[in-house]
Amino acid sequence: MKSIRNLFVLLAIAFGGVTTTQAQDPLPSWNDTAPKKAVVAFVEKVTKEGSPDFVPLAERIATFDNDGTLWCEKPLPVQLFFTLDRVKALAPQHPEWKTSEPFASLLKDDLKGALAGGEKAILEMMAATHAGMTVTDFHKIVSDWIATAQHPKYKRPYTECVYQPMLELVSYLRANGFKTFIVSGGGSEFMRPWAEKVYGIPPEQVVGSSGKTKFEMRDGIPVLMKLPAVNFIDDKEGKPIGINEHIGHRPIAAFGNSDGDLQMLQYAGAGSSVRFCLYVDHTDAEREFAYDRKDSLAKLDKGLDEAAAKGWTVVSMKDDWKTIFPPVKQ
Amino acid sequence: MKSIRNLFVLLAIAFGGVTTTQAQDPLPSWNDTAPKKAVVAFVEKVTKEGSPDFVPLAERIATFDNDGTLWCEKPLPVQLFFTLDRVKALAPQHPEWKTSEPFASLLKDDLKGALAGGEKAILEMMAATHAGMTVTDFHKIVSDWIATAQHPKYKRPYTECVYQPMLELVSYLRANGFKTFIVSGGGSEFMRPWAEKVYGIPPEQVVGSSGKTKFEMRDGIPVLMKLPAVNFIDDKEGKPIGINEHIGHRPIAAFGNSDGDLQMLQYAGAGSSVRFCLYVDHTDAEREFAYDRKDSLAKLDKGLDEAAAKGWTVVSMKDDWKTIFPPVKQ
Repeated sequence: MKSIRNLFVLLAIAFGGVTTTQAQDPLPSWNDTAPKKAVVAFVEKVTKEGSPDFVPLAERIATFDNDGTLWCEKPLPVQLFFTLDRVKALAPQHPEWKTSEPFASLLKDDLKGALAGGEKAILEMMAATHAGMTVTDFHKIVSDWIATAQHPKYKRPYTECVYQPMLELVSYLRANGFKTFIVSGGGSEFMRPWAEKVYGIPPEQVVGSSGKTKFEMRDGIPVLMKLPAVNFIDDKEGKPIGINEHIGHRPIAAFGNSDGDLQMLQYAGAGSSVRFCLYVDHTDAEREFAYDRKDSLAKLDKGLDEAAAKGWTVVSMKDDWKTIFPPVKQ
Repeated sequence: MKSIRNLFVLLAIAFGGVTTTQAQDPLPSWNDTAPKKAVVAFVEKVTKEGSPDFVPLAERIATFDNDGTLWCEKPLPVQLFFTLDRVKALAPQHPEWKTSEPFASLLKDDLKGALAGGEKAILEMMAATHAGMTVTDFHKIVSDWIATAQHPKYKRPYTECVYQPMLELVSYLRANGFKTFIVSGGGSEFMRPWAEKVYGIPPEQVVGSSGKTKFEMRDGIPVLMKLPAVNFIDDKEGKPIGINEHIGHRPIAAFGNSDGDLQMLQYAGAGSSVRFCLYVDHTDAEREFAYDRKDSLAKLDKGLDEAAAKGWTVVSMKDDWKTIFPPVKQ
């Protein structure tokens, strides 16, 4: 697609697209604080032809974590809400769940009890709800759920609990010739059905965790069945590994919000050209949630120390963002 | 990238790009036989807005096998020539190879003896040559090798032993809004260093077999080390699995040349919209190599039967292609 992206950028310049976008402020939901200035300075550097920091289009790769970086992950990650809802929906077909944990507690609406088993309990519920169907059927299950489910605090669809400043940032990078990827611990098959509509990121640019699949013929039709077995965990050290496997370049910019993103930021930050690493720090208890060093599921602790040591950009949601979520849809 | 591709197609129309290309014959190296007519009819159908067969840009995904489909895989697959050359280059650091097979035979220039151990021997030589370095170092090793190595029969670089008619086809599809992917049994890290230059297909659109990697800090620099362990074999049932994992859509067009591509063609061929499946049949002993039903490494047998039964397009290289390779570079 190199030629297409070249053409796009040439035409954007010819028609004044890039200039107009910049003149109109590409990041209107960001306060004029250091993080916004750092983003803009980076983009201007790498796109300025003839400058020593210029980066050719093919290398303008930016990777974004999803949970907590592009959308809200509190009070629980969205895929976990999906999992809990699916357990309830499938319960009539599984009478045995009434007497076995973590299902039994969940079916009695005891969420705390259901999650008491920690990662093992969550994996068990995921295996029970994310396998046993074709990838096409799973895609439809996710699409149907995400179209109707609502965030418990904001009472709006999860796809509207995305961060408006990050939507602007993703678009701004794309307008400057970046290819944008999601690199998330969440399931790639959970994100792909809606990521293009919400972020403009197509399925082939979504890298996530995955389960194993099996190629089968069903009535002469080839299908991929989802199996209850982990294929890949796209978290921590897995993020650079997933980036290498799927993207095959070292990104020049990476965006995260937890220690699970640290290795991705380290990996992106270490190339020979100008790089940009940014952490979203959840500091806004009033408009969203405040959590970082002490969180149990999405701790940002080592990451904050390393950001300080390396001069990475840290966004304080409270101080650096004018708005958190997009306007309510009519 | 949906918006970029939309823009590209709009502009191609505005500036007459697509029309001009078509008027100039986008497939000049193809004879005017049935395969060319079938390709053109397919592309015209899926790109005609308002027609019931119209396919939106986001779904215009085409996948190509590499060995034997885009470039020559005889007398041996190119990656095997690379492996053999690397064994020889690394031999001084491995005195033990003088007395252990398959290395010992190869180092005495007994290729037949080295390959006598079949797949096990090949995997052993690959593990010895494709691991123990960073992915960045491996990229450089491949780049250096491919820049100088020559095909034993044609005495030209392997990257010029690509099929001119397929180069035209890949470009023709892209000019019509398709996103083109390689889906090959070959190693993704072996193809990525040169695939963009040769086919216009960037690293992130190359899906192949892969070895495991490990994230490590070396002198404070994060690197990915290549380990001598298989991660994924992108062949047969692995091709649809790899497509789902990396691309996340069912392609609407797929191109192969062996039974190793059969499941990819079945998978692409089974969707609800118009589909296109094509086999390249190696029938040209004079200009290239003649092999299909009887070949040991790249048999096309079941695939030919299924193509006949399902009406897939089969290219006879001898009858349907005017030229095989690009003109010799000056």
